[in-house]
Amino acid sequence: MDPKLDLVLERIVDVPPELVWKAWTQPEHVKHWFTPRPWTTPECQIDLRPGGLFRTVMRSPEGKDYPNVGCFLEVLPNRRLTWTNALEADFRPTRGPVNENCPFFFTATIHMEPHGTGTKYTAVVRHPDEGARAKHAEMGFHEGWGAALDQLVAHMRGR
Amino acid sequence: MDPKLDLVLERIVDVPPELVWKAWTQPEHVKHWFTPRPWTTPECQIDLRPGGLFRTVMRSPEGKDYPNVGCFLEVLPNRRLTWTNALEADFRPTRGPVNENCPFFFTATIHMEPHGTGTKYTAVVRHPDEGARAKHAEMGFHEGWGAALDQLVAHMRGR
Repeated sequence: MDPKLDLVLERIVDVPPELVWKAWTQPEHVKHWFTPRPWTTPECQIDLRPGGLFRTVMRSPEGKDYPNVGCFLEVLPNRRLTWTNALEADFRPTRGPVNENCPFFFTATIHMEPHGTGTKYTAVVRHPDEGARAKHAEMGFHEGWGAALDQLVAHMRGR
Repeated sequence: MDPKLDLVLERIVDVPPELVWKAWTQPEHVKHWFTPRPWTTPECQIDLRPGGLFRTVMRSPEGKDYPNVGCFLEVLPNRRLTWTNALEADFRPTRGPVNENCPFFFTATIHMEPHGTGTKYTAVVRHPDEGARAKHAEMGFHEGWGAALDQLVAHMRGR
């Protein structure tokens, strides 16, 4: 972890790691929480293996769609999930800057650790340079990923 | 494998998969064969795990150095090795176009299968688009990777 290049969201949440894992790895759950409202996530494809596709479509309140394509890198059930938008399915390098909604590459790791009956949840997002990190912070990384996590917890609690 | 985007070198070589694996994963061997002569490979660093660094320096006959930085993605001893220059150590996206010697991103997989006392060796190199594939082919992919493989075999035979 490099504080000049990375962004981190760390929280204790009151759902266990097994449910955080399901929320992140099953499309029917991802669609419920992935994008802070009033945005929505009408599409999600997950091929859960290193080299597998992770694709979502985010829809703005005006109805404009923003597809995001990425590739899973680490799949450790209930512990750690890593993916990047610098690669597509089968580890192929991505064609170019992703979309106007996410104009830089990053690699994200979600760490899940048991914490009482809940989870210590740590999202580490790695960027290629300080400019990309600053851009992501300005676009509201902490607010956005935090609000999505609140939605995840509300959706999964008690399941 | 997508013939519009990928380049493939397939050969039967007369060293077993275990020696091909060593040649690719131990820096002291890599330095002997990685770059077709009269170019050389004076430096090599290998952290052999998914997310580990793969760094080489190629030196031209005139003495100019070209560093290459990449990240391992799949490490299956004696069977399959995958890395990409679109990521650096710990899966961080690479800062930008790599160097004038390799002005595009690619992901390479070396497949090794036992074949008699030797190996069926298949290198699959995936590119983001047809332009990058064409550029790599023009730069002499088949000649270069073929000559390096000849050097690998000559260096490892009988070890």
